[in-house]
Amino acid sequence: MSKKLVHTPEGVRDIYGDEKAKKTVVEHLLHEKITGYGYRDIQTPTFEFFDVFSKEVGTTPSRELYKFFDKEGNTLVLRPDFTPSIARCAAKYFMDEDVPIRFCYQGNTFTNTSQLQGKLKEVTQMGAELIGDGSVQADAEMIAMTIEALYHAGLSDFQISVGNLEYFKGICAEAGLDEETELELREFISGKNYFGAEELLDHIGVHKKDKELLLKVSDLFGTVSILEEAQKAVSNKRSRHAIERLEQVYQALCDYGVEKYVSFDLGMLSKYNYYTGIIFKGYTYGVGDAIVKGGRYDHLLHRFGEEAAAIGFVIVVDDLLAAMGRQNVIIAGVEAPVKLYYTAENFKEKLLEAKGMRSSGKKVELLPQAEA
Amino acid sequence: MSKKLVHTPEGVRDIYGDEKAKKTVVEHLLHEKITGYGYRDIQTPTFEFFDVFSKEVGTTPSRELYKFFDKEGNTLVLRPDFTPSIARCAAKYFMDEDVPIRFCYQGNTFTNTSQLQGKLKEVTQMGAELIGDGSVQADAEMIAMTIEALYHAGLSDFQISVGNLEYFKGICAEAGLDEETELELREFISGKNYFGAEELLDHIGVHKKDKELLLKVSDLFGTVSILEEAQKAVSNKRSRHAIERLEQVYQALCDYGVEKYVSFDLGMLSKYNYYTGIIFKGYTYGVGDAIVKGGRYDHLLHRFGEEAAAIGFVIVVDDLLAAMGRQNVIIAGVEAPVKLYYTAENFKEKLLEAKGMRSSGKKVELLPQAEA
Repeated sequence: MSKKLVHTPEGVRDIYGDEKAKKTVVEHLLHEKITGYGYRDIQTPTFEFFDVFSKEVGTTPSRELYKFFDKEGNTLVLRPDFTPSIARCAAKYFMDEDVPIRFCYQGNTFTNTSQLQGKLKEVTQMGAELIGDGSVQADAEMIAMTIEALYHAGLSDFQISVGNLEYFKGICAEAGLDEETELELREFISGKNYFGAEELLDHIGVHKKDKELLLKVSDLFGTVSILEEAQKAVSNKRSRHAIERLEQVYQALCDYGVEKYVSFDLGMLSKYNYYTGIIFKGYTYGVGDAIVKGGRYDHLLHRFGEEAAAIGFVIVVDDLLAAMGRQNVIIAGVEAPVKLYYTAENFKEKLLEAKGMRSSGKKVELLPQAEA
Repeated sequence: MSKKLVHTPEGVRDIYGDEKAKKTVVEHLLHEKITGYGYRDIQTPTFEFFDVFSKEVGTTPSRELYKFFDKEGNTLVLRPDFTPSIARCAAKYFMDEDVPIRFCYQGNTFTNTSQLQGKLKEVTQMGAELIGDGSVQADAEMIAMTIEALYHAGLSDFQISVGNLEYFKGICAEAGLDEETELELREFISGKNYFGAEELLDHIGVHKKDKELLLKVSDLFGTVSILEEAQKAVSNKRSRHAIERLEQVYQALCDYGVEKYVSFDLGMLSKYNYYTGIIFKGYTYGVGDAIVKGGRYDHLLHRFGEEAAAIGFVIVVDDLLAAMGRQNVIIAGVEAPVKLYYTAENFKEKLLEAKGMRSSGKKVELLPQAEA
């Protein structure tokens, strides 16, 4: 027998027993909260044409995509991310209809990362997208719903960190950086490589004042009070508007009563290039990465031939479960089934007993009695 | 903009709105019934090593598999079917533990069929596997659970047709057919190509009596009374035992009280070569294909290095939904969310109203009031 037969490929795994039972419960709770906000389920194909996830869309790099061919020779890709698929779908079917539209999705995503990173290559995600609403209220709803969904699932110790890409972009524009340099700088700052960032700025000869400001961005994180400091630091309109927007969103989050879960981080600069404006991430202890990633992508639908403001988030379900496990969060409703034993003689009797218990909502497993 | 951008590849599609809402409800109802029987959720990877679905396992033909490579050059396959994955997983983790074990799975499967067949290439399936129990009661539980799950989902007009491969195999053995000829003959009879079957039997010079018997098998379908006729037609032990088994299973199905949904078909010979013994299919009107396929696969775990009797079934969720749609079955709980409109002035008030409604289980969508 080939050894490969009983093994799963590197980076993917089987999930069963209590671990899977917990996952089912947590997914149900997240879904319940999101659909309670009027988001309706959507299912997109597991694979799409390569173009949907191309470089211009600004999602996962091509080398990390699983690619294969259909019988016609088209390149297909296992989705690394739901947002471009939902944008495609919205552009195709919905833009003639009443906007805003609200979608909830749930399923697996695939990234062909190098083994050295030790990350899972198949990951379950659940998320929401609100398309056709560019308002402060839309931003606040997304963040509040994220908080309520995590809390409803059983997590209590977490923070949603909120940034606004426009703040950084305003400073870049003032400093006269071109788009390519801006992206390079974003990558350095996202990766906390401040030496690299400084070297880049020195190399292109940015003004001392602008350089200081660009490097200062990564220090601008903390409670709501940081917004005031950030506002004082800049004079360009774009960055100032970005802070005003964050203040308005914070006010709406107070209306929701979720402000204690919210902090701010103006140095948060996503690796997904499709984001514009507000972005946010959810952190808890027990996992290194963010368990939630979200933000505005007001220009993404343009790639699919339509114009619409949009905001969305994704909860990385597997990471959330790993964190809940490490935090010893009790997840209700994962009891193993009741075992009921029968013999050839009393099968019918035990079957009726099982039926009665099942109809009152119990999970009952019928098992043959081991012979004495 | 590339035209491909807004299109999905041939054979896969977007599902949204009421259609997707109905799918979510139906999946929930099927899952509720199956887990009520003590089946526990399991998740296997969307792709596996090619060997798991190889010819020897007896699943989908290689030309209908979606294949690609990992970074190490191994051939990976998008699963066309869950059963081999579950058998692999059971062989890997569970055979030291108490058997029987009960698994429930749900997810998408992929077959790279030719476009001409007009079938979907990505299909949602839900199913159950009972591993380590070769009893009549196990057969009956699988069939009864299928019936109860379909009924619970809202379908009322359907039939589960039950066969036993052993009946046919007994006649083949008596007629002295080798395995290859038997498989060829099964393909002819499954495809209702009786002319081809007759020609094959004439070509290899089978006895007239055996030939008549082999061709008669496809006529042996109907209510339980057909079993008596089938029993009279054969004298070999293997075929006679096969009928006795079906009679015992029928008796247990009467104990469940589901016998009115059951008929028999001794000419049912699955295309999946891993099946042994009892096999069954569920039919309803509105779709051509079976919406349920199931059966014993007592030798499949051997392929993965373990020995265990096993039986399972799969419900093809997309086909079930198509049938329910054509039958105008009402699916409860798919109402669109309530719409609640706010202005900048009354946002907080409307938000509180929405919160109250949501906490009582209503789905509420907050929308900006169109300006007058």
